[in-house]
Amino acid sequence: MSFERIGGRTVWEGRIATVRVDQFRFDDGEEAEREIVEHPGSVAVVAFDGERLFLVRQPREPVNDPALLELPAGKLDEEGEDPLDTAKRELAEEIGKGARTWHRLTSFYTSPGFADEECHVYLATDLYDEPAEASENERIEIVEVPLAELDQVIQECRDAKTLVGLLWFQAYNA
Amino acid sequence: MSFERIGGRTVWEGRIATVRVDQFRFDDGEEAEREIVEHPGSVAVVAFDGERLFLVRQPREPVNDPALLELPAGKLDEEGEDPLDTAKRELAEEIGKGARTWHRLTSFYTSPGFADEECHVYLATDLYDEPAEASENERIEIVEVPLAELDQVIQECRDAKTLVGLLWFQAYNA
Repeated sequence: MSFERIGGRTVWEGRIATVRVDQFRFDDGEEAEREIVEHPGSVAVVAFDGERLFLVRQPREPVNDPALLELPAGKLDEEGEDPLDTAKRELAEEIGKGARTWHRLTSFYTSPGFADEECHVYLATDLYDEPAEASENERIEIVEVPLAELDQVIQECRDAKTLVGLLWFQAYNA
Repeated sequence: MSFERIGGRTVWEGRIATVRVDQFRFDDGEEAEREIVEHPGSVAVVAFDGERLFLVRQPREPVNDPALLELPAGKLDEEGEDPLDTAKRELAEEIGKGARTWHRLTSFYTSPGFADEECHVYLATDLYDEPAEASENERIEIVEVPLAELDQVIQECRDAKTLVGLLWFQAYNA
């Protein structure tokens, strides 16, 4: 089964997301309309210094949580930015660290039924301090998690990129 | 750090998603505007008969994939539907099965920076055939995965709910 996009229009354009309503034709001849939220894509980083993982707590207004526990993460600056560059920037800005070794764990769509956001998950090791790059965001609290508490943190965390990153790390890299 | 919503307006209303632009005030007095995509919430089901897992392949127009490999899943019919009811309905419709035993594995936000979608992931075991409930969707192909191939499928699959469900199952339930 395949399909082609036969039309569409932008119905709303914001700073982060753009919404389109597109028409598709399937190879059986049927046609369907889909609401699609366009997103530039995102990254998340499992930062591990051999003993500890570095997570962040921050308020997330869309889900009404004042302190969601997450991997350091962020949006691509623009469609086409190398996600590894995004990952390096976000790690420096959010936890004030650089990493000498980077390894892509996996990439996934956050909600492929209605959004095109793809999130790229990296493992960053051989960490070093890069405090000058840290941005002044008083709302982000850095949380250091000893490896022995990884399982406990997996039970607590509640967003896709953090669960995928930590479960993947636990299964294949820890 | 906490915040309160001090205003907002709906900027687009579709069948699946609604987009709001809301204003928030943080307890340090700062104010910020956020684009928020409202979604009714979703479920995904790890269906396991003791030997095999049941996945589906289907076209996903938003990410331009003609055959994404995913857990059986679906949207809540309306805000407030019991997600377990949604899970039972989707399992029957997509793979023609019922389950005598249901267990919630975890719940997560798909992309908490801009969307409020929460996905609830269930493990369904003690499966039985319920072919009468299967909906006529020629675009969904059922894929049976022997437990021995779980790891291989985790490497292949590319969406949040499927990765979270299968990694969680592998870590704690397999």
